[in-house]
Amino acid sequence: MSDNIELRPTRLEDLELMLAWRSDPEIYEHFREQQEPLNWEDHVNWFINRPPDRHDFIIEYRGRRVGSVNVDKKDYIGVYIGEKSLWGQGIATETIEHVCDILERAEFYAEIHIENTASQNLFEKCGFKKIDEYNDWLKYRR
Amino acid sequence: MSDNIELRPTRLEDLELMLAWRSDPEIYEHFREQQEPLNWEDHVNWFINRPPDRHDFIIEYRGRRVGSVNVDKKDYIGVYIGEKSLWGQGIATETIEHVCDILERAEFYAEIHIENTASQNLFEKCGFKKIDEYNDWLKYRR
Repeated sequence: MSDNIELRPTRLEDLELMLAWRSDPEIYEHFREQQEPLNWEDHVNWFINRPPDRHDFIIEYRGRRVGSVNVDKKDYIGVYIGEKSLWGQGIATETIEHVCDILERAEFYAEIHIENTASQNLFEKCGFKKIDEYNDWLKYRR
Repeated sequence: MSDNIELRPTRLEDLELMLAWRSDPEIYEHFREQQEPLNWEDHVNWFINRPPDRHDFIIEYRGRRVGSVNVDKKDYIGVYIGEKSLWGQGIATETIEHVCDILERAEFYAEIHIENTASQNLFEKCGFKKIDEYNDWLKYRR
């Protein structure tokens, strides 16, 4: 991973910034379980009650927080770059590669909306292959 | 002002969160000098190079950061609540009242887009009156 990018576990004090990112319709439009801006209480409850085998990381770029990546207990990866002017610069690609390296699971999966071609390209670039399709969702595996 | 709301000067460490708020099209759509998401370098340069007679405050609600208010050297007030699920709960109203109290200027102004009726209602509730109209912008004074 380039020196500009670092991952570290998400902390309580990151929740204000994550709430702001996740309330932007251009960011949450392809989230599976969110169709509107979050409220604070739900957001904090979600964070506090995450299962212990789920991992959330903050993506730092040149020392500032720019996005989030997570792997859940079923080995699904989710990622977004909250700082939108950084989209398309390869930060999410490097992040996914790095997460797959450090978490050492046999397989990783991703579930991507059929219209979210940017995310499909991203995961394909990281070696994921489409293995299934149901309703408007594609399932990828690496 | 209610005990839930506090204002304090904006600091460098608030810029990540402000960038996230100001990159949401539902927030910046009525900003006069912004039509697209900001990038980090422009945002930091803006902050560092603000004129000394401009005041920026972070709005804190129940201890967390939820928005921003500023008064520039020409006595224009600008305000937004970044945490969108708090819109319509009176936080911006209380904020403007408080800013007008503490800054002790003879008059305050606001410049509001003609389609931004929420903001027009907000400033009218705080005692501002419409005094001018040019192109798509309304000028208010208190």
